[in-house]
Amino acid sequence: MKISKKQTKIVTIGGGTGSFVVLSGLKQHQGVDLTAVVAMTDDGGSTGLLRDEYGVLPPGDIRQCLVALSEADRPMRDLFNFRFNRGGLKGHNFGNIFISTLEQLGGDFGEALKISGDVLKVKGRVLPVTLDKVKLVAQLNNGKKLVGEHELTSYQLVSKFGLKKLSLDKKVKANPEARRAIKEADIIVVGPGNFYSSIIPNFLTPNITRAVKNSKAKKVFVCNLMNKFGHTDDFAVSDFIREFGRLVDKNIFDFVIANNKKPPEKLLKKYMDEGRPVLVDEIGVPTPKLLQYDLLSEKLFRPAKGDKLGSQRTLIRHSPDKLAKAILDLWKKS
Amino acid sequence: MKISKKQTKIVTIGGGTGSFVVLSGLKQHQGVDLTAVVAMTDDGGSTGLLRDEYGVLPPGDIRQCLVALSEADRPMRDLFNFRFNRGGLKGHNFGNIFISTLEQLGGDFGEALKISGDVLKVKGRVLPVTLDKVKLVAQLNNGKKLVGEHELTSYQLVSKFGLKKLSLDKKVKANPEARRAIKEADIIVVGPGNFYSSIIPNFLTPNITRAVKNSKAKKVFVCNLMNKFGHTDDFAVSDFIREFGRLVDKNIFDFVIANNKKPPEKLLKKYMDEGRPVLVDEIGVPTPKLLQYDLLSEKLFRPAKGDKLGSQRTLIRHSPDKLAKAILDLWKKS
Repeated sequence: MKISKKQTKIVTIGGGTGSFVVLSGLKQHQGVDLTAVVAMTDDGGSTGLLRDEYGVLPPGDIRQCLVALSEADRPMRDLFNFRFNRGGLKGHNFGNIFISTLEQLGGDFGEALKISGDVLKVKGRVLPVTLDKVKLVAQLNNGKKLVGEHELTSYQLVSKFGLKKLSLDKKVKANPEARRAIKEADIIVVGPGNFYSSIIPNFLTPNITRAVKNSKAKKVFVCNLMNKFGHTDDFAVSDFIREFGRLVDKNIFDFVIANNKKPPEKLLKKYMDEGRPVLVDEIGVPTPKLLQYDLLSEKLFRPAKGDKLGSQRTLIRHSPDKLAKAILDLWKKS
Repeated sequence: MKISKKQTKIVTIGGGTGSFVVLSGLKQHQGVDLTAVVAMTDDGGSTGLLRDEYGVLPPGDIRQCLVALSEADRPMRDLFNFRFNRGGLKGHNFGNIFISTLEQLGGDFGEALKISGDVLKVKGRVLPVTLDKVKLVAQLNNGKKLVGEHELTSYQLVSKFGLKKLSLDKKVKANPEARRAIKEADIIVVGPGNFYSSIIPNFLTPNITRAVKNSKAKKVFVCNLMNKFGHTDDFAVSDFIREFGRLVDKNIFDFVIANNKKPPEKLLKKYMDEGRPVLVDEIGVPTPKLLQYDLLSEKLFRPAKGDKLGSQRTLIRHSPDKLAKAILDLWKKS
């Protein structure tokens, strides 16, 4: 008789690009059951166009996670990542149109994701943190209010004036499926990703922070490799942990995973206008425990053709493979 | 021992809307193997936009045939028929975008159709009559030349000045798969559909007419229910046969299937600006043999929301069910 081995349930919490890396890496491993919980505050680029014109929920980050978990053939994954770089569809992403059209057709985002997941042969689940339409609001210390993730990202005023508070523009309900997945997880991975616009918004959704705290999972924060000018400028690892504590909760993480390998000087110079590397320092408290690895990807990231945001995205990335190994290592740690 | 029954191979030749009706009806029957051969000269509406902006092959008629043969769940079929009626995507059809984006991605229309067919769980095959980019050219008796199906359709000058000749704007090659399907067919169904812009262009493709003539299939012309003002104005069944003979070949069809039930007076009045019914008259020659049936659909056709051409389309349609039965009846006739 064969005894079926229990799968390790891993839940990622984040946005699109960062979660894509984590999920792509973990997908290669046997015995893992993957769920991506995704922020729903994106309102820039192709996603912003679709939100504005069709009143749909933001598809972009969700789509990246679906593609990460896809076991469909290459053309179908490429199709979902395709960006039109000319003509009347310029700036649009095909996968975003696919998801949003299904939503318009049936009026149900969950059903749209189910069908998209079938077409992409997704192994695992992608869950919006909320199914309500919501915007992110940033209050700065100078009194200014930035409404929408798009304003927060493009104005780059956070580090100049200081961020007083992040909030959602209205009361929303957490997706019960996301809460359940968090509750039942063995490992919860928060990040990497845009800290203020992709990571924190998940925890502004009511009951998500509590669900994470109450979960028996090992909880790990994966720190970004690079800072983002105008947002986290010169943050070291400890600053991220402190800022997370200030905006969300001080007692969430058991571990922090950080990269200790310096990116090549040539690359750093090339992207010095976008941001500087996150330095690894002492966290100053016994928990979370800091774990350091070489997590750098040796491949350069190239933005998709026609990707308007391409030039704003850092080309220094986590290696999906190295990051997955570091996360799965946690399972052995007490 | 069970002996596997030979399937009846049926090939339809036409465009989108008419072939959709034939294929939808035949699909409901056991023991038929369906192939749609589709004209590639469409350049209006959503298809025209995509051709102009992305230099792709025309997806619209192909898409309608794929949906007709689809065994996917309802939402996927609805998705492929979805037309945007507002916002930046206004006028576009989702299925057309799907097919054209796959073509742009891989550079291969055949591969794009294969993938689209998989997603739609198509039972049967949809084959472009040619894989070359081509336009339809109409020469009128007054010397005027109409270039592109769009001009031919919208100017409505054909019946006013008389059509001298229909041709393609350049030498193209027939799709070898389409020729093979025609050669191996048991029944070849030509029409219904827009006579000059969806039916005839298939036969302007080199070697298609010869392939049809050389095929041992029973060949049937399904006559339209309604004429189209500016094109066939007051054609009776015999006029269609004569005009096909003039433009293509006199000795193609074994049978003509025509409707002998008059549409309700109320409907005829409502659409009197678009065209009058095709009257059934004597063909005047022993072959093709005229077969008359009540073929009228009892359901009204409603154009899809946002369909720009909607108001130009007749709402008097063939019943897919009645038409399929009439076609399958041929199998019993000598």
